[in-house]
Parts: sequence; C-alpha cells; structure tokens
Amino acid sequence: SGLVLVKNPHLDLMEEDVLYHLDLGTKTHNLPAMFGDIKFVCVGGSPNRMRAFAQFMQRELGLAAAGEDVADICAGSDRYAMYRAGPVLSISHGMGIPSISIMLHELIKLLHHAKCRDVTIIRIGTSGGLGIEAGSVVITDTAVDSSFQPRFEQVVLDDVVVRSTELDKDLAEELLACSRDIPDFPTLIGHTMCTYDFYEGQGRLDGALCSFSSEKKLEYLRRAYDAGVRNIEMESTAFAALCGLCGLKGESCHFHLL
Amino acid sequence: SGLVLVKNPHLDLMEEDVLYHLDLGTKTHNLPAMFGDIKFVCVGGSPNRMRAFAQFMQRELGLAAAGEDVADICAGSDRYAMYRAGPVLSISHGMGIPSISIMLHELIKLLHHAKCRDVTIIRIGTSGGLGIEAGSVVITDTAVDSSFQPRFEQVVLDDVVVRSTELDKDLAEELLACSRDIPDFPTLIGHTMCTYDFYEGQGRLDGALCSFSSEKKLEYLRRAYDAGVRNIEMESTAFAALCGLCGLKGESCHFHLL
Repeated sequence: SGLVLVKNPHLDLMEEDVLYHLDLGTKTHNLPAMFGDIKFVCVGGSPNRMRAFAQFMQRELGLAAAGEDVADICAGSDRYAMYRAGPVLSISHGMGIPSISIMLHELIKLLHHAKCRDVTIIRIGTSGGLGIEAGSVVITDTAVDSSFQPRFEQVVLDDVVVRSTELDKDLAEELLACSRDIPDFPTLIGHTMCTYDFYEGQGRLDGALCSFSSEKKLEYLRRAYDAGVRNIEMESTAFAALCGLCGLKGESCHFHLL
Repeated sequence: SGLVLVKNPHLDLMEEDVLYHLDLGTKTHNLPAMFGDIKFVCVGGSPNRMRAFAQFMQRELGLAAAGEDVADICAGSDRYAMYRAGPVLSISHGMGIPSISIMLHELIKLLHHAKCRDVTIIRIGTSGGLGIEAGSVVITDTAVDSSFQPRFEQVVLDDVVVRSTELDKDLAEELLACSRDIPDFPTLIGHTMCTYDFYEGQGRLDGALCSFSSEKKLEYLRRAYDAGVRNIEMESTAFAALCGLCGLKGESCHFHLL
C-alpha cells in the first residue's frame, strides 16, 4: 500500500499521540492536512544546514523567490528543526544514534498519522572519508558497525536485538546516476561505518582521551577499508534499521569533509 | 594540582587544536584569557534551557540586570550552545551518549588549554523518574547501564573498554544539603540508569516500534527499582566515565518531568 508501517500494537489504543521532541501531536495538529502529501524526507545533523537545504529545495522547485525564508515547523522545540519545501521535508537529527533514533521514531509516527504514501527518506550528512578524495560523496550500499558487520544492535530493556542495516540498492544506483549529470562531483557507492564515538571510536588522535597507538589505528582503518568501508559517521546503522523495519525506502549519502 | 587531565600523548605535539564542534581553537582564540577563571561547568541537553540557566546565574551572581542577554560563545557552530556567567559556563550537549561525548572531549581539552583549576561539572538535565514523585530532583550517586551495572562500555576502534561511572559522593551530599534550604523541593539521591534509546530502550509503549509486552516492561522496571534506580536518562554513564578519567569533580542532577 506504500503506507509507513508502525510496529507497535499500543499506538492505535492511545487517545492522543504526542510527538514530544517535534512539538507536534495528534490532538494539537491536523497531521494529514499538514503532511499528507509529503513524498521525500531529507535528514541531516545540523539544523542550519537543513534550513539551507529547504531553502535550496524551494528555489529548485520554483516555490519561492531566492532568499525567502522557511519556517521551522518544530519551532516550539529546540531538539530538532523541521522545514518543508513542497513535497520535501527537511529535518535535523543532532549527532549520534540515540539522537537520530528519537527523531526517527517520531517522524515515522508522524508519517503514519498523516497517512503518507510512498515516502523516500535520504540522510544527507557529513562524514569522514576513508581512502577517498576530500569533497567526495559516498552513497551507502550497506551501513556497518565497528566490526564491519551489517547490523544494528538495539538494546530493548536489557535484551540486545540485532537488526539488519540494508538500504535501498535501486535508490543508491539512481542517486549515483544523478551525480553523473553534474561536473566535478566525485561520487561513489561503498559501505559506511557507524560509530558511537567521534574521537576514540573513530581512531582520532585529537580527543581528550586516546587509549590506542597510531599503529593500531592504521591497522584498524586498513582492515575497515579492506572490508569495503569508504566513510565513517555516527547515525547510519540506526537510520537503516529503523527505516527498513518501517517500510520507508531509505538511502544515506555523505559528503566527505576534508 | 587541580588541573584537568588530558590523557592523550598526541595532543601536546599538535601545532593547533581545533575544537570543531565548539567553533573554538588554540590558534584562533586565547583560551586562557577567555576561560582561565572558570570554576563551574553546568551542562544539559537543550540549548534554550542552558541559555535560560546562564541568565539565571547572571542574576543570582548580581552580574547583570534581569532580562539582559547572554552571548552564545559557540555561535559559529549550531552543534552546541555555550554561555558564561562569571565563573560559571553553561553548555548544551544535545541528546544521547555520542552527542554528550563529543562535547565533553572538546570541553575537557578547552579547560586543559585554558589551564583551569579545581573545576566542578554538574549535569542539570531532565529524566524519567522511577517510583518517585513528578517534579522531584534525583542527584545521582552512581550512573548504571541497562543491566544496572556501574559501568560505561566504550567502543575504541573494535575493542570494548569498560570504564567506571562513579560520581563525586561529597558533591552529591552537598547538593542534597542545598535542596533542604528550599521549600517544596523534593530531592533524593539514587542510581540513574542511562540508555541508548528513548523509546524501546526505556520500555516506552509509545514509539514507532515496540517489541516487548507491557508485562515484560513492568517486570524490568521493577527490577531496576529494586537495584536502586530512581530515574532514567541518556547521558549519565558517559558523563561520569569521561569526567572521572579527566579529573573533573562531577555530579549529575535530574529533574523528573511528569
């Protein structure tokens, strides 16, 4: 049916669903009227960037004059920022798996309540590249954990549930094809490694703590490269797992900063 | 000596240390002049609340007229917000362990570069209470993980390093004593459980996914209560581990929302 799947039997029994961190709710807002026609959701860590992206989309879609402002739909909350441009929603998710997970739970419920159909979600974030040119875009075929495995270990109460981190391969190819139309836009498909920590977790030597040697770091990153990892960030496994379970066609594209 | 400890041999060899997510650096800013006299750092998830807290501290310390604004020291970055009021820094850390970890790594380096001495750090955040009155404040004696153990498992490359989550017991007692001077301010000392997920991780029945029964949730929360847990949030174990390792006298106080 193309509808977003919510896998929670309790939800339909609730009189009201408050999407706390988005400052939206089923009693306070007419979610089908506000969001029913959404077809694309783009998410990224930084609120300023997601605002700039919504303004860019407005111009690209011919919906507004250049420089015209977009309104933050979640202005009542400072947890996330949300903007829309025609059928495109642009939402920030902060940094790390716990932060993106809260946003995705509430976004998925939002799309469910709004009865959206055939929604595509794309994470457009920054990442650290591995053996690739600075400025490249990595389109993720599979999100992997710090052991290079395509899995997301979700702690549910005190159990660990292992979830798949497959992304949409056709969408990845489609995005790669788009990049070919743009000159000087180095783009590749590869595995994206997701870590829980920016400093020690990614082998950085410039954190407040560094409990490994440079040699160990190099050996680890070499193994990651050999396993197909082309970039490292902090949200992709949770993104892939949640979108996959809820029937959202999802993809993850990362710009490799210097 | 009361100095903040940085445990990274590479740091002193670096020509410049850029604190990326704070938009500060050793070459672009005179960190000792800007921060050398800081004695207290208060951190919390929400940027708006940390701004309000800095304004409150300004008034309490008689540093500014009511309503006078405070400037965001990290205005060039939208990852975190930082304000100061006399010897008090007030910084937001977003939601979840990865987000607070990035901020703490950069804050600890900042205090190190600024040669700060005898700094006390307090997390002042919100949490969900367990068997306690709404509106209570929980002062954490020990931060525990989802198995109620006082430990933080940090993934370093592909190793798991287990770190202690002890907090400063004297500081906890001192804060409890302060609360007694204020009428109608229910405050207690207890264990704080830290999870990686707000919905499934905390046994909430209102997420997009819910892969456990109400009975299993109740049984788990009862076990948590019996193990001494009085509230649940998403940052305390990483906060306790990092502050403990770097010689920051740390404590964590949480306001239990309804």
